[in-house]
Amino acid sequence: MRTFILYARKAVTSPDFNIEDLPSSGGRMDLIARCISSALFLSFAMRRDSRIFVVLNGPPNPPVTVCFDGSITNVSPDEQSIALWIKKALEKIENFKGKDWISLKNNIKVSRKSFQDIIKESQGSFYILYEKGEPIEKVKIAENPIIILGDHLGLPSKEEKFALRYGKKISLGKTSYLASQCIAIVNWMFDEA
Amino acid sequence: MRTFILYARKAVTSPDFNIEDLPSSGGRMDLIARCISSALFLSFAMRRDSRIFVVLNGPPNPPVTVCFDGSITNVSPDEQSIALWIKKALEKIENFKGKDWISLKNNIKVSRKSFQDIIKESQGSFYILYEKGEPIEKVKIAENPIIILGDHLGLPSKEEKFALRYGKKISLGKTSYLASQCIAIVNWMFDEA
Repeated sequence: MRTFILYARKAVTSPDFNIEDLPSSGGRMDLIARCISSALFLSFAMRRDSRIFVVLNGPPNPPVTVCFDGSITNVSPDEQSIALWIKKALEKIENFKGKDWISLKNNIKVSRKSFQDIIKESQGSFYILYEKGEPIEKVKIAENPIIILGDHLGLPSKEEKFALRYGKKISLGKTSYLASQCIAIVNWMFDEA
Repeated sequence: MRTFILYARKAVTSPDFNIEDLPSSGGRMDLIARCISSALFLSFAMRRDSRIFVVLNGPPNPPVTVCFDGSITNVSPDEQSIALWIKKALEKIENFKGKDWISLKNNIKVSRKSFQDIIKESQGSFYILYEKGEPIEKVKIAENPIIILGDHLGLPSKEEKFALRYGKKISLGKTSYLASQCIAIVNWMFDEA
Protein backbone atom coordinates (compact mmCIF):
# COMPACT_ATOMS: atom_id res chain seq x y z
CA MET A 1 0.00 0.00 0.00
CA ARG A 2 1.26 3.45 -0.99
CA THR A 3 -0.09 6.31 1.13
CA PHE A 4 0.01 10.09 0.74
CA ILE A 5 -0.92 12.47 3.55
CA LEU A 6 -1.55 16.05 2.43
CA TYR A 7 -1.79 18.78 5.05
CA ALA A 8 -4.02 21.54 3.62
CA ARG A 9 -3.78 24.65 5.77
CA LYS A 10 -6.59 26.74 4.36
CA ALA A 11 -8.93 24.17 2.81
CA VAL A 12 -12.43 24.83 4.07
CA THR A 13 -14.28 22.39 6.30
CA SER A 14 -17.80 23.45 5.32
CA PRO A 15 -19.61 22.20 2.19
CA ASP A 16 -20.67 25.77 1.36
CA PHE A 17 -17.70 26.55 -0.88
CA ASN A 18 -18.40 27.59 -4.46
CA ILE A 19 -17.66 24.76 -6.88
CA GLU A 20 -16.97 27.38 -9.56
CA ASP A 21 -14.32 29.09 -7.46
CA LEU A 22 -12.20 26.39 -5.87
CA PRO A 23 -9.04 28.47 -5.31
CA SER A 24 -10.59 31.25 -3.17
CA SER A 25 -13.87 30.03 -1.79
CA GLY A 26 -12.51 26.49 -1.25
CA GLY A 27 -9.18 27.55 0.30
CA ARG A 28 -7.21 26.05 -2.61
CA MET A 29 -9.57 23.14 -3.13
CA ASP A 30 -8.20 23.10 -6.72
CA LEU A 31 -4.77 22.14 -5.40
CA ILE A 32 -6.28 19.38 -3.28
CA ALA A 33 -8.27 17.99 -6.20
CA ARG A 34 -5.14 17.89 -8.37
CA CYS A 35 -3.25 16.07 -5.61
CA ILE A 36 -5.97 13.42 -5.34
CA SER A 37 -5.98 13.04 -9.12
CA SER A 38 -2.18 12.66 -9.18
CA ALA A 39 -2.19 10.15 -6.35
CA LEU A 40 -4.82 7.77 -7.75
CA PHE A 41 -5.50 8.23 -11.44
CA LEU A 42 -3.68 6.61 -14.33
CA SER A 43 -4.67 6.59 -17.98
CA PHE A 44 -7.98 4.66 -18.00
CA ALA A 45 -7.09 3.04 -14.68
CA MET A 46 -6.88 3.65 -10.96
CA ARG A 47 -4.03 2.84 -8.61
CA ARG A 48 -5.70 0.08 -6.62
CA ASP A 49 -2.89 -0.11 -4.06
CA SER A 50 -2.81 3.59 -3.20
CA ARG A 51 -4.65 6.06 -1.02
CA ILE A 52 -4.47 9.69 -0.07
CA PHE A 53 -5.56 11.37 3.14
CA VAL A 54 -6.20 15.09 2.85
CA VAL A 55 -6.39 16.91 6.16
CA LEU A 56 -8.49 20.05 5.73
CA ASN A 57 -7.52 22.69 8.27
CA GLY A 58 -9.46 25.74 7.14
CA PRO A 59 -12.59 27.32 8.64
CA PRO A 60 -15.15 26.78 10.07
CA ASN A 61 -14.57 23.42 11.86
CA PRO A 62 -11.09 22.00 11.37
CA PRO A 63 -9.77 19.42 11.17
CA VAL A 64 -11.66 17.21 8.74
CA THR A 65 -9.85 14.43 6.88
CA VAL A 66 -11.04 12.91 3.63
CA CYS A 67 -9.63 9.64 2.35
CA PHE A 68 -9.71 8.66 -1.34
CA ASP A 69 -8.32 5.26 -2.31
CA GLY A 70 -8.20 2.99 -5.34
CA SER A 71 -11.64 1.53 -4.60
CA ILE A 72 -13.56 4.76 -5.18
CA THR A 73 -16.13 4.86 -7.97
CA ASN A 74 -17.83 7.58 -10.03
CA VAL A 75 -14.96 10.03 -9.63
CA SER A 76 -13.25 11.61 -12.65
CA PRO A 77 -9.74 13.07 -12.63
CA ASP A 78 -10.88 16.66 -13.20
CA GLU A 79 -10.83 19.19 -10.36
CA GLN A 80 -14.56 19.84 -10.35
CA SER A 81 -15.54 16.18 -10.09
CA ILE A 82 -13.19 15.59 -7.16
CA ALA A 83 -14.21 18.84 -5.43
CA LEU A 84 -17.89 17.89 -5.74
CA TRP A 85 -17.15 14.68 -3.87
CA ILE A 86 -15.28 16.57 -1.15
CA LYS A 87 -18.35 18.81 -0.86
CA LYS A 88 -20.53 15.69 -0.39
CA ALA A 89 -18.13 14.33 2.22
CA LEU A 90 -18.28 17.64 4.11
CA GLU A 91 -22.10 17.57 3.97
CA LYS A 92 -22.03 14.06 5.39
CA ILE A 93 -19.87 14.96 8.37
CA GLU A 94 -21.47 18.33 9.11
CA ASN A 95 -23.64 17.12 12.01
CA PHE A 96 -21.34 14.40 13.19
CA LYS A 97 -19.19 14.89 16.29
CA GLY A 98 -17.07 11.76 16.82
CA LYS A 99 -13.81 10.80 15.17
CA ASP A 100 -14.99 7.63 13.41
CA TRP A 101 -14.75 7.28 9.65
CA ILE A 102 -17.97 7.76 7.72
CA SER A 103 -18.17 6.19 4.25
CA LEU A 104 -19.90 7.61 1.23
CA LYS A 105 -21.58 5.19 -1.18
CA ASN A 106 -18.65 5.42 -3.58
CA ASN A 107 -16.07 4.50 -0.89
CA ILE A 108 -14.75 7.96 -0.13
CA LYS A 109 -14.30 8.27 3.64
CA VAL A 110 -14.43 11.28 5.91
CA SER A 111 -13.73 11.87 9.59
CA ARG A 112 -12.83 14.51 12.13
CA LYS A 113 -9.37 13.02 12.60
CA SER A 114 -6.40 15.39 12.70
CA PHE A 115 -3.07 15.20 10.88
CA GLN A 116 -1.49 13.70 14.00
CA ASP A 117 -4.33 11.15 14.36
CA ILE A 118 -3.78 9.98 10.78
CA ILE A 119 -0.03 9.60 11.30
CA LYS A 120 -0.51 7.72 14.57
CA GLU A 121 -2.97 5.31 12.96
CA SER A 122 -0.93 4.64 9.79
CA GLN A 123 1.35 1.62 9.43
CA GLY A 124 4.40 1.94 7.18
CA SER A 125 7.59 3.91 6.57
CA PHE A 126 7.20 7.67 6.72
CA TYR A 127 8.88 10.17 4.38
CA ILE A 128 8.34 13.91 4.61
CA LEU A 129 8.75 15.75 1.30
CA TYR A 130 10.91 18.82 1.79
CA GLU A 131 13.31 20.73 -0.48
CA LYS A 132 16.20 20.30 1.96
CA GLY A 133 15.76 16.57 2.59
CA GLU A 134 17.87 13.63 1.40
CA PRO A 135 17.70 13.33 -2.41
CA ILE A 136 14.98 10.81 -3.23
CA GLU A 137 17.24 9.09 -5.78
CA LYS A 138 19.56 8.09 -2.93
CA VAL A 139 16.90 6.82 -0.54
CA LYS A 140 16.03 3.14 -0.43
CA ILE A 141 12.27 3.32 -0.15
CA ALA A 142 10.81 0.71 2.23
CA GLU A 143 7.60 -1.23 1.66
CA ASN A 144 4.33 0.54 2.41
CA PRO A 145 5.74 4.05 2.04
CA ILE A 146 3.78 6.92 3.56
CA ILE A 147 4.60 10.27 1.96
CA ILE A 148 3.73 13.41 3.87
CA LEU A 149 3.51 16.78 2.17
CA GLY A 150 2.07 20.23 2.68
CA ASP A 151 0.07 22.44 0.36
CA HIS A 152 1.39 25.72 -1.10
CA LEU A 153 2.00 26.99 2.44
CA GLY A 154 3.89 23.91 3.61
CA LEU A 155 3.58 22.08 6.92
CA PRO A 156 3.27 24.18 10.11
CA SER A 157 6.44 23.69 12.13
CA LYS A 158 4.57 21.96 14.98
CA GLU A 159 3.18 19.37 12.57
CA GLU A 160 6.50 18.98 10.82
CA LYS A 161 8.21 18.25 14.14
CA PHE A 162 5.55 15.68 14.95
CA ALA A 163 5.94 13.97 11.57
CA LEU A 164 9.72 13.87 11.98
CA ARG A 165 9.29 11.62 15.02
CA TYR A 166 7.98 9.00 12.60
CA GLY A 167 10.12 9.46 9.50
CA LYS A 168 12.72 11.48 7.64
CA LYS A 169 12.85 14.24 5.08
CA ILE A 170 13.35 13.37 1.43
CA SER A 171 13.77 15.84 -1.40
CA LEU A 172 12.95 16.07 -5.10
CA GLY A 173 15.71 18.64 -5.58
CA LYS A 174 16.10 22.39 -5.30
CA THR A 175 13.06 23.26 -7.38
CA SER A 176 9.80 23.88 -5.50
CA TYR A 177 7.13 21.97 -7.39
CA LEU A 178 3.36 22.11 -7.06
CA ALA A 179 2.14 19.50 -4.56
CA SER A 180 0.35 17.56 -7.32
CA GLN A 181 3.55 17.50 -9.38
CA CYS A 182 5.47 16.14 -6.35
CA ILE A 183 2.96 13.31 -6.07
CA ALA A 184 3.20 12.48 -9.79
CA ILE A 185 7.01 12.39 -9.58
CA VAL A 186 7.07 10.28 -6.41
CA ASN A 187 4.57 7.82 -7.91
CA TRP A 188 6.74 7.46 -10.99
CA MET A 189 9.92 6.98 -8.92
CA PHE A 190 8.24 4.24 -6.91
CA ASP A 191 6.78 2.60 -10.02
CA GLU A 192 10.23 2.45 -11.59
CA ALA A 193 12.03 1.31 -8.43
CA MET B 1 14.00 26.49 -24.24
CA ARG B 2 11.92 23.47 -23.25
CA THR B 3 8.89 22.84 -25.47
CA PHE B 4 5.89 20.53 -25.13
CA ILE B 5 3.51 19.84 -28.01
CA LEU B 6 0.20 18.25 -26.98
CA TYR B 7 -2.07 16.79 -29.66
CA ALA B 8 -5.65 16.99 -28.34
CA ARG B 9 -7.97 14.93 -30.53
CA LYS B 10 -11.36 16.00 -29.25
CA ALA B 11 -10.69 19.44 -27.75
CA VAL B 12 -13.25 21.86 -29.13
CA THR B 13 -12.28 24.76 -31.37
CA SER B 14 -15.23 27.00 -30.54
CA PRO B 15 -15.40 29.24 -27.45
CA ASP B 16 -18.93 28.02 -26.73
CA PHE B 17 -17.89 25.21 -24.39
CA ASN B 18 -19.27 25.22 -20.86
CA ILE B 19 -16.62 26.32 -18.36
CA GLU B 20 -18.45 24.28 -15.71
CA ASP B 21 -18.20 21.09 -17.74
CA LEU B 22 -14.71 20.94 -19.21
CA PRO B 23 -14.51 17.15 -19.70
CA SER B 24 -17.59 16.73 -21.93
CA SER B 25 -18.49 20.08 -23.41
CA GLY B 26 -14.82 21.03 -23.85
CA GLY B 27 -13.66 17.70 -25.29
CA ARG B 28 -11.38 17.04 -22.29
CA MET B 29 -10.44 20.67 -21.80
CA ASP B 30 -9.73 19.63 -18.16
CA LEU B 31 -6.87 17.42 -19.34
CA ILE B 32 -5.46 20.23 -21.48
CA ALA B 33 -5.61 22.69 -18.61
CA ARG B 34 -3.77 20.26 -16.33
CA CYS B 35 -1.08 19.77 -18.98
CA ILE B 36 -0.54 23.51 -19.31
CA SER B 37 -0.37 23.80 -15.53
CA SER B 38 2.18 20.95 -15.34
CA ALA B 39 4.30 22.40 -18.12
CA LEU B 40 4.63 25.94 -16.78
CA PHE B 41 3.73 26.29 -13.12
CA LEU B 42 6.02 25.82 -10.15
CA SER B 43 5.34 26.69 -6.53
CA PHE B 44 4.94 30.50 -6.57
CA ALA B 45 6.88 30.68 -9.85
CA MET B 46 6.63 30.10 -13.58
CA ARG B 47 9.04 28.22 -15.81
CA ARG B 48 10.36 31.17 -17.81
CA ASP B 49 12.26 28.96 -20.26
CA SER B 50 9.35 26.70 -21.18
CA ARG B 51 6.34 26.71 -23.48
CA ILE B 52 3.54 24.39 -24.47
CA PHE B 53 1.66 24.25 -27.74
CA VAL B 54 -1.75 22.57 -27.54
CA VAL B 55 -3.22 21.60 -30.89
CA LEU B 56 -7.01 21.45 -30.57
CA ASN B 57 -8.49 19.07 -33.13
CA GLY B 58 -12.14 18.87 -32.11
CA PRO B 59 -15.20 20.45 -33.73
CA PRO B 60 -16.21 22.79 -35.27
CA ASN B 61 -13.10 24.29 -36.95
CA PRO B 62 -9.90 22.31 -36.31
CA PRO B 63 -7.07 22.78 -36.03
CA VAL B 64 -6.47 25.63 -33.64
CA THR B 65 -3.21 25.84 -31.68
CA VAL B 66 -2.80 27.75 -28.45
CA CYS B 67 0.63 28.55 -27.05
CA PHE B 68 1.26 29.27 -23.37
CA ASP B 69 4.79 30.16 -22.28
CA GLY B 70 6.59 31.45 -19.23
CA SER B 71 5.77 35.06 -20.06
CA ILE B 72 2.01 34.74 -19.59
CA THR B 73 0.33 36.81 -16.89
CA ASN B 74 -2.94 36.63 -14.94
CA VAL B 75 -3.22 32.86 -15.28
CA SER B 76 -3.60 30.59 -12.23
CA PRO B 77 -2.71 26.89 -12.14
CA ASP B 78 -6.31 25.71 -11.68
CA GLU B 79 -8.24 24.13 -14.56
CA GLN B 80 -10.94 26.76 -14.71
CA SER B 81 -8.54 29.70 -14.92
CA ILE B 82 -6.59 28.10 -17.76
CA ALA B 83 -9.76 26.99 -19.59
CA LEU B 84 -11.16 30.52 -19.39
CA TRP B 85 -8.07 31.79 -21.19
CA ILE B 86 -8.41 29.11 -23.87
CA LYS B 87 -12.01 30.28 -24.30
CA LYS B 88 -10.76 33.86 -24.79
CA ALA B 89 -8.16 32.68 -27.30
CA LEU B 90 -10.87 30.83 -29.25
CA GLU B 91 -13.05 33.95 -29.23
CA LYS B 92 -10.13 35.94 -30.59
CA ILE B 93 -9.49 33.60 -33.51
CA GLU B 94 -13.13 32.91 -34.36
CA ASN B 95 -13.33 35.31 -37.31
CA PHE B 96 -9.74 35.03 -38.38
CA LYS B 97 -8.77 32.95 -41.42
CA GLY B 98 -4.96 33.08 -41.83
CA LYS B 99 -2.33 31.03 -40.03
CA ASP B 100 -0.52 33.87 -38.27
CA TRP B 101 -0.22 33.95 -34.51
CA ILE B 102 -2.55 36.33 -32.68
CA SER B 103 -1.53 37.45 -29.19
CA LEU B 104 -3.80 38.06 -26.26
CA LYS B 105 -2.92 40.88 -23.87
CA ASN B 106 -1.47 38.44 -21.36
CA ASN B 107 0.90 36.85 -23.94
CA ILE B 108 -1.09 33.71 -24.74
CA LYS B 109 -0.94 33.13 -28.49
CA VAL B 110 -3.40 31.40 -30.81
CA SER B 111 -3.35 30.45 -34.49
CA ARG B 112 -4.87 28.10 -37.04
CA LYS B 113 -1.61 26.18 -37.33
CA SER B 114 -1.77 22.38 -37.38
CA PHE B 115 0.28 19.82 -35.45
CA GLN B 116 2.53 19.39 -38.48
CA ASP B 117 2.93 23.17 -38.90
CA ILE B 118 4.08 23.47 -35.29
CA ILE B 119 6.61 20.66 -35.67
CA LYS B 120 7.97 22.10 -38.91
CA GLU B 121 8.42 25.53 -37.35
CA SER B 122 10.03 24.33 -34.10
CA GLN B 123 13.80 24.27 -33.62
CA GLY B 124 15.25 21.67 -31.28
CA SER B 125 15.52 17.94 -30.60
CA PHE B 126 12.26 16.04 -30.81
CA TYR B 127 11.16 13.26 -28.47
CA ILE B 128 7.82 11.47 -28.77
CA LEU B 129 6.45 10.12 -25.48
CA TYR B 130 5.25 6.58 -25.95
CA GLU B 131 5.04 3.55 -23.62
CA LYS B 132 7.19 1.43 -25.96
CA GLY B 133 9.97 3.96 -26.54
CA GLU B 134 13.54 4.00 -25.23
CA PRO B 135 13.56 4.39 -21.42
CA ILE B 136 13.96 8.08 -20.66
CA GLU B 137 16.59 7.32 -18.00
CA LYS B 138 18.89 5.99 -20.76
CA VAL B 139 18.41 8.84 -23.21
CA LYS B 140 20.87 11.71 -23.27
CA ILE B 141 18.52 14.63 -23.71
CA ALA B 142 19.86 17.29 -26.09
CA GLU B 143 19.53 21.04 -25.61
CA ASN B 144 16.20 22.62 -26.49
CA PRO B 145 14.18 19.43 -26.14
CA ILE B 146 10.75 19.30 -27.77
CA ILE B 147 8.49 16.70 -26.21
CA ILE B 148 5.49 15.52 -28.19
CA LEU B 149 2.58 13.74 -26.55
CA GLY B 150 -1.04 12.85 -27.17
CA ASP B 151 -4.09 13.22 -24.96
CA HIS B 152 -6.02 10.25 -23.49
CA LEU B 153 -6.56 8.94 -27.04
CA GLY B 154 -2.92 9.21 -28.09
CA LEU B 155 -1.51 10.47 -31.38
CA PRO B 156 -3.29 9.44 -34.59
CA SER B 157 -0.95 7.12 -36.53
CA LYS B 158 -0.56 9.61 -39.40
CA GLU B 159 0.65 12.29 -37.00
CA GLU B 160 2.85 9.86 -35.13
CA LYS B 161 4.57 8.85 -38.37
CA PHE B 162 5.09 12.50 -39.22
CA ALA B 163 6.59 13.25 -35.80
CA LEU B 164 8.91 10.25 -36.08
CA ARG B 165 10.59 11.86 -39.09
CA TYR B 166 11.84 14.51 -36.69
CA GLY B 167 12.63 12.56 -33.53
CA LYS B 168 12.47 9.32 -31.60
CA LYS B 169 10.22 7.63 -29.09
CA ILE B 170 11.08 7.81 -25.42
CA SER B 171 9.25 6.08 -22.60
CA LEU B 172 8.46 6.66 -18.94
CA GLY B 173 7.98 2.92 -18.42
CA LYS B 174 5.19 0.41 -18.75
CA THR B 175 2.63 2.38 -16.81
CA SER B 176 0.28 4.63 -18.80
CA TYR B 177 0.18 7.93 -16.97
CA LEU B 178 -2.12 10.88 -17.42
CA ALA B 179 -0.66 13.36 -19.92
CA SER B 180 -0.24 16.00 -17.19
CA GLN B 181 1.63 13.49 -15.02
CA CYS B 182 3.96 12.69 -17.94
CA ILE B 183 4.78 16.38 -18.27
CA ALA B 184 5.47 16.72 -14.53
CA ILE B 185 7.78 13.70 -14.61
CA VAL B 186 9.64 14.84 -17.75
CA ASN B 187 10.11 18.32 -16.30
CA TRP B 188 11.58 16.84 -13.12
CA MET B 189 13.89 14.51 -15.08
CA PHE B 190 15.18 17.46 -17.10
CA ASP B 191 15.53 19.64 -14.00
CA GLU B 192 17.64 16.98 -12.31
CA ALA B 193 19.74 16.14 -15.40
